[in-house]
Amino acid sequence: MASWKTARPPAVARDVSFDRWLDEQRRRHPHSVRRVPLDALPGWRFCRDTGDLVHSSGRFFSVSGLRATTDFGAGGRRPRSWTQPVIVQPEVGLLGILLKESRGEVHCLLQAKMEPGNVNGLQLSPTVQATRSNFTGVHRGRPVPYTEYFTGDRSGARVLADSLQSEQGWWFLHKRNRNVVVMTDEDVPALDGFRWLSLRRVGALLRRDHLVNMDSRTVLSTLPPRLLADSAGRPAPAGEDDALHSFTEVLSALADARFRYELTQEQLPLRKVLEDAVGPWRRTRDGIGRDDGRYFTVLGVTVEAQAREVARWAQPLLAPVAGLAGLLVRRVDGVPHVLLRARVEAGTLNVAEFGPTVQCSSRPAHGEGGRRPEFLDLLLAPRAGRVLFDTEQSEEGGRFHHALTRNLIVEPDEGDLRDLPDLPPDFCWVSVPQAQALLRHGNYLNVQARSLMTALMLATG
Amino acid sequence: MASWKTARPPAVARDVSFDRWLDEQRRRHPHSVRRVPLDALPGWRFCRDTGDLVHSSGRFFSVSGLRATTDFGAGGRRPRSWTQPVIVQPEVGLLGILLKESRGEVHCLLQAKMEPGNVNGLQLSPTVQATRSNFTGVHRGRPVPYTEYFTGDRSGARVLADSLQSEQGWWFLHKRNRNVVVMTDEDVPALDGFRWLSLRRVGALLRRDHLVNMDSRTVLSTLPPRLLADSAGRPAPAGEDDALHSFTEVLSALADARFRYELTQEQLPLRKVLEDAVGPWRRTRDGIGRDDGRYFTVLGVTVEAQAREVARWAQPLLAPVAGLAGLLVRRVDGVPHVLLRARVEAGTLNVAEFGPTVQCSSRPAHGEGGRRPEFLDLLLAPRAGRVLFDTEQSEEGGRFHHALTRNLIVEPDEGDLRDLPDLPPDFCWVSVPQAQALLRHGNYLNVQARSLMTALMLATG
Repeated sequence: MASWKTARPPAVARDVSFDRWLDEQRRRHPHSVRRVPLDALPGWRFCRDTGDLVHSSGRFFSVSGLRATTDFGAGGRRPRSWTQPVIVQPEVGLLGILLKESRGEVHCLLQAKMEPGNVNGLQLSPTVQATRSNFTGVHRGRPVPYTEYFTGDRSGARVLADSLQSEQGWWFLHKRNRNVVVMTDEDVPALDGFRWLSLRRVGALLRRDHLVNMDSRTVLSTLPPRLLADSAGRPAPAGEDDALHSFTEVLSALADARFRYELTQEQLPLRKVLEDAVGPWRRTRDGIGRDDGRYFTVLGVTVEAQAREVARWAQPLLAPVAGLAGLLVRRVDGVPHVLLRARVEAGTLNVAEFGPTVQCSSRPAHGEGGRRPEFLDLLLAPRAGRVLFDTEQSEEGGRFHHALTRNLIVEPDEGDLRDLPDLPPDFCWVSVPQAQALLRHGNYLNVQARSLMTALMLATG
Repeated sequence: MASWKTARPPAVARDVSFDRWLDEQRRRHPHSVRRVPLDALPGWRFCRDTGDLVHSSGRFFSVSGLRATTDFGAGGRRPRSWTQPVIVQPEVGLLGILLKESRGEVHCLLQAKMEPGNVNGLQLSPTVQATRSNFTGVHRGRPVPYTEYFTGDRSGARVLADSLQSEQGWWFLHKRNRNVVVMTDEDVPALDGFRWLSLRRVGALLRRDHLVNMDSRTVLSTLPPRLLADSAGRPAPAGEDDALHSFTEVLSALADARFRYELTQEQLPLRKVLEDAVGPWRRTRDGIGRDDGRYFTVLGVTVEAQAREVARWAQPLLAPVAGLAGLLVRRVDGVPHVLLRARVEAGTLNVAEFGPTVQCSSRPAHGEGGRRPEFLDLLLAPRAGRVLFDTEQSEEGGRFHHALTRNLIVEPDEGDLRDLPDLPPDFCWVSVPQAQALLRHGNYLNVQARSLMTALMLATG
C-alpha cells in the first residue's frame, strides 16, 4: 500500500552524472536578468486608454486590473470587495511531458530551462512548455522541439492524460494551461539541455529545493495512477469509492461551495486600480506595489540568454511574498486520504477549486480574512506525527520573480486528529485515488494542491 | 443492450390521470403575460453609466454587452470579432430533482410550473428550480418547497449526481447552474402542483412537444447510468473504455479544441453595443434587436400568476429564432455511440464544450460562419436510417421567450456512414457510457447535447 508513510526519500542512488550534467547546463547557458523600470521595458507599454501594461504585439499577457467580490472567507458577514492588479493571459498554454519505458522503469524527458524569475536560473521544466504563440511563431524564435509529440502528428505517441488546469488564482484572471502526458515507444534522443530521468529519480529531485519547476510538478500530478503504481512496484491503488466519502460526495462538496459562495469578477483598467484613492495599490519608482508591502509587487526585467528560443527580451514579473502550501494526510482503513479545502480565489475560473489544507503567505493572515488559517498550527508543529515532505518550491519563473512556496506534507498522529473539532465548512477528506480521479479533469485541484499531490505520489514513496 | 435502436416510444400506458392533473393545473394556475417596452418595465432600468438593463435590487440578472473574438468557425482564416447583447447572471442557480423508488421503479418529483416565456404556460420543471436569491429571500416571496433535500439538511437524502452545468453559450456569459439529483427513502408527499412520475413515464412525456422543460432535461441527463439501466430493466452499460476511442482520447479531443481555438470575451457596456454604428444591434420601439432580424431580440413582459413564489413581476426575456439540435448515433461492436462536436460559443466559460452533431438556428447558417453545417443533410433526410427522436422542446421559459428547439436523433444506415468522408476537425464519436461519465462533471456537454442525451436515454428505449 501507498508507502508515503515513510519520511525517507526513495532509494535512488545519488546520481553524480545528473549533478555534473546540471552544472554543465548552468555553465553552458549563461544568462543575465536585470531590473528595469516598467515604463522603460522594451516592447512593453502602458496602454493609453486603460493603463494596462501590454506587449506591443498585443499578445503574450498583460497586467490589468480586477475588482473581485466574494463572501468566501468573510465568515458569514457581508461579501468583501477589493481591487488589485492581475495578469491576464486568455491564451491557453501547453505543458507537455514525454514518457517512455526503459529498463523496466518509466522515464520522463525534462529540460534544464532558464526562466527570468527563477531564484536559481535553471530548473527542470517539462519536455514542452510553450504558449500557443510559440506554436504559431509570434515569437519569431526557433521552433520548440518535441512539439510534434503533443500535436497529434506523431503516430507512435499515446496520450495518457490531457486536461486544462488552473494556475495561481490570486495572481491570474482565469488562467489555465493544457497539461499533457504522452507515452512513446520510439527511441527519442535527448537534445542538448534535455535529459531522460526515471520517475523515481524525479521523486528524489523533488526533495531538493527549487529544482523541479512548477510546470513539471503540475503535469506530473496528472500521471495515471496505474503508471505510478507500476513504477514504484506498488500494488494497484484502491478504487475511487474505497474511501471515507463516495466520489459523488466529493464532487458534491465542491459543487456545493461553487453554489454557496458568491464570486463576481470585473476586469478593470489598471489605471482605475492605481488611481483609486482608497485602494492600496500605487505606481512606485520602478514598478507597482502596495503601501503596506503585502501580497506582491510588479517589476520589470530584461533578459539575455543563449539557450532560449529568443536570446534577448524584456518582460514584467509578479514578485509575491513567500508562501506556504501544506497538506494533512491520514490513513482511513489503510487508504491514504488528503485534507482538501474548497477555496475561492480572486481569479478562479469557476468560483472555487480544491486547494491544500493550508494555503497562505509567509504572513499567514493573507487571504483568510485576517484569521489564522485552520490547521496551520498542526501542520507547523504536529505533536507526534510525521513530516513526510518539507521542501521549498518555486512558482513559474516565466511570470513570477522569486516566488517561493514551502511545500509541506504532514501525517499527524491519530491522537492529534481525534482532538480536533469537527471539520470546518469547505474541508473534505479525499482519498488519494479520488484526488487522482479528479486530476483527470481540469479546475478541481488548484496549482498548490497539485504540486503537493506530485510530492506525495512521487517523493514520499 | 441499449434499446434506443427501436423508434417506438417506451411501453407506457397512456396516463389519463396525468393529463387530467395537468389540465387541472393549467386551470387552477391562471396567469397572464403581457409585452411591455423595456424602458417601462417595473423594477428594471437602463443603468445610466453602462446602458445595461438591470434590476433595481442589483441582483437576478442583467442584459449587458459582450465583445467576443474567436477563430472557431473561421475555417483557418483570421479570428472573427463581434459585439452582441448578452445575459449576465454571475450567481449559480440550483436545479434539483428528488427521486425515490416505488413499486420497483425509480420515480422523480416534477412540478407543473409556469414560466413567462413558455409557449404553453406550464411545463414540467425540476423539484427545485431556484436561484440563490430564492434561498436567501431576496425575492421576498414564499419559501421554495423541498429545498431541504438539496442543502444537506436532510439526513435520509443521498446525492446521486451534483455538478455545475453550462447553459446557452450564445445568450449567456459564463452561465452555469448546479444540477443535483437526490434519492430519498422517505415517503415524500407531492404538494399541490407537484407529481411523482416514473422515469419510464417521463420518457414517454419527453416525446410530447414542450412538456418536460429545459431544466428538467438537463438535470435528467446527469442521472447515474446504473440507475437508468436498472429502471429500464437493461443490463449494466458497457465500460468507459469499451468504445471507439479511449476515455482519455475523448478528454484529449476536447482539451485539444480548448487549446487550439482562441476565445477572448470582453464584457462591454450595453450602450457600446447599441451605439456601435457598424454593428447591427439597435434599440427598437419595444426592445433590442438587429436590423436583419437574426439571432434574437430582447423584450420585456409583466407577469401575473397565482402559483409562483411572487404573484406579480416584470422582467426582460430573450426571444431567439427557432433552433435545431441534432444527434447522429451509431453502434460500434454493439456499443451505442453519439457524434459530438467540440464547439466554441460566445459566452462559453472554458473555451469549448461538446455540443451535438448539429446545432443551428432555423436559418442553418447561424453561427457556422455562413457554411451549411456538416451532417445537417444526413440528419434531415437519412437515406435508410431511422429517426429515433423528433420533438420540439423549449429552452428555459424564465429567461427565453418562445425559444423552440427541434430535438432530433437519427441513426443513419451504415451505408450512409460509410459514404461519409473522414470526420472533420472537432467531431468525435463518443460512446454513450463515455458521455455519461463526462456528465458527472461540468462544462463537458453543452445544454443542447444534454437535452439530446436525456431524450436518447429515457425516450428512445
